[in-house]
Amino acid sequence: MSSEITLDTIIEAAQRIKVHKTPVLTNKTISQLASLEEQPIDLFFKCELFQKTGSFKFRGASNAIALLSHETAASGVVTHSSGNHAQALALAAKTKGTPAYIVMPRTAPTIKKAAVIGYGAQVIECEPTQIAREEAAQKVVLEKGATLIHPFNDPNVIAGQGTIAVELLSQVKDLDALIIPVGGGGMLTGCSIAAKSLCPSLRIFAAEPEAVNDCYRSFKNKHQETNEKAISVADGLLTNLGDIAYSNIHQYVDDVFTVSEKQIINTMELVWERMKLCIEPSAAVGVAVAIHNKEFKDTLKRLHIQRIGVILCGGNVDVLQATALFEQYRYEEGKSA
Amino acid sequence: MSSEITLDTIIEAAQRIKVHKTPVLTNKTISQLASLEEQPIDLFFKCELFQKTGSFKFRGASNAIALLSHETAASGVVTHSSGNHAQALALAAKTKGTPAYIVMPRTAPTIKKAAVIGYGAQVIECEPTQIAREEAAQKVVLEKGATLIHPFNDPNVIAGQGTIAVELLSQVKDLDALIIPVGGGGMLTGCSIAAKSLCPSLRIFAAEPEAVNDCYRSFKNKHQETNEKAISVADGLLTNLGDIAYSNIHQYVDDVFTVSEKQIINTMELVWERMKLCIEPSAAVGVAVAIHNKEFKDTLKRLHIQRIGVILCGGNVDVLQATALFEQYRYEEGKSA
Repeated sequence: MSSEITLDTIIEAAQRIKVHKTPVLTNKTISQLASLEEQPIDLFFKCELFQKTGSFKFRGASNAIALLSHETAASGVVTHSSGNHAQALALAAKTKGTPAYIVMPRTAPTIKKAAVIGYGAQVIECEPTQIAREEAAQKVVLEKGATLIHPFNDPNVIAGQGTIAVELLSQVKDLDALIIPVGGGGMLTGCSIAAKSLCPSLRIFAAEPEAVNDCYRSFKNKHQETNEKAISVADGLLTNLGDIAYSNIHQYVDDVFTVSEKQIINTMELVWERMKLCIEPSAAVGVAVAIHNKEFKDTLKRLHIQRIGVILCGGNVDVLQATALFEQYRYEEGKSA
Repeated sequence: MSSEITLDTIIEAAQRIKVHKTPVLTNKTISQLASLEEQPIDLFFKCELFQKTGSFKFRGASNAIALLSHETAASGVVTHSSGNHAQALALAAKTKGTPAYIVMPRTAPTIKKAAVIGYGAQVIECEPTQIAREEAAQKVVLEKGATLIHPFNDPNVIAGQGTIAVELLSQVKDLDALIIPVGGGGMLTGCSIAAKSLCPSLRIFAAEPEAVNDCYRSFKNKHQETNEKAISVADGLLTNLGDIAYSNIHQYVDDVFTVSEKQIINTMELVWERMKLCIEPSAAVGVAVAIHNKEFKDTLKRLHIQRIGVILCGGNVDVLQATALFEQYRYEEGKSA
């Protein structure tokens, strides 16, 4: 496993992995909401919610598994996740005929376990603590000889995620900037390295929930910060920034912007209603920055930015839960109005 | 207004109108659900829900308006509709700088009126009966000199809708069949003429709600039937088949299949959950035929059909209303289980 992530490793990943080339959509209403007075903004939405397993995570998982030797792959792969990486690793492993072991807290929703099992992986239950997860995964590594595939702090995973940017830049010409949601920072790192290498003048903006703003603080304070609580509706962005992401962020990322829970939910509903896309909350974070963040809008003005790619990273959300959120936030608005 | 609809008039429409080239998506899970034992089926979903104004109707409305002389256009266009054609005509008219008058029942939801007004059209309210609508529209024709643009019984509208098939056949090679939802039959007629002209061996199947099955009965009985009641969750498919559609159906359509309300709702939820697409109930009707209709599956077997294009005709649905439907049908299933 090389620890270097470069445009070359990302382009090699793009040639290696078998993924959907996801479409790029536009929406006049949402671009208008993002526009400034006398400065129209054009948003280009990269629809990774249509990726296999419903999120971009399939790119990184596929690349990491493809780079295992036949011998190593035969002993299987393991990860601890109840989210999109779990499903992505399960399907990527199945495609290569590699056993996959997914450590999940015993409290994880049955539907998420069923999805992983549906992709042919073996679910290993553990207590719902970070330590219990890591220990359970370590046990699989020792007993089965399986290889741990980290969801974001892995150069091969990161190179896989970077293929989103390579694809997007081939689909839309003359982009001035990208907005990329950030949790552990795998997608941010891969995409920012790819995009800055292909087009050094292109600006990279990370988008993060205010409630778990460790990346924002790490970027501003030039010191690796952590979140005390990991509570946000954007369940794909709860983790702290990984070491690899932190070590690259000052070189490749231009700024980080945050949005409130209310802004995330309202934007998610807007995208469902106007774009007809069932995005998950994490995917709404980037769009919410474009619509709601004042510092972001000031930056667009200052840098004369017009054409912006926004990554809609996934669509794995329960429809009924999502609409319950929409209703809850409307109700609270009603109360405060 | 020529009453001839041919491949030529459809291709001219495609060159004339400025519409989104909507993407074609696939989904392994749904194709598997449509597959037969020992006969895999590949479904290709033409995403007209991403069309301007959220449905395919913008194609036909744009073509009809583009074909008006400057003088005629200056006096405006009028239609009576509370659905997708209203929004489509409003935006198409605005784009050409033509005044648009939309007759809507005074009971139509505020949100639908607001959408039409948002596109710059003038809403004219009337009593919620078919006669009142037609009279109100006729009054606008007389007083303003406006041209009535019928939602489906108009050759120029039909030629515009036919551009969906021209586009789809250029995007996906070697299709064996198309499934097309049918209400008034504008999309069915335009697409079937285009597809059969481009590829005579391609089969055309219409998909209709059982609850408003006038097209099914008209096709089988070779006699123009009507619905006694117009009640279905697929609110875009309630109208009876138009005269032009009826006069073409036996030449261009191979068969008609119907689905129940429950099958429509369950399929709609499946598409939301698995494809991440907020389709409206009418758009679920074609997918539901592919998954649930036994006669349809027998037909696929008999004709050795594998690759099928399915038109997802629109996405104009209230998210909260849609999820209420999902819950209601799950509740009823629970009761009957």
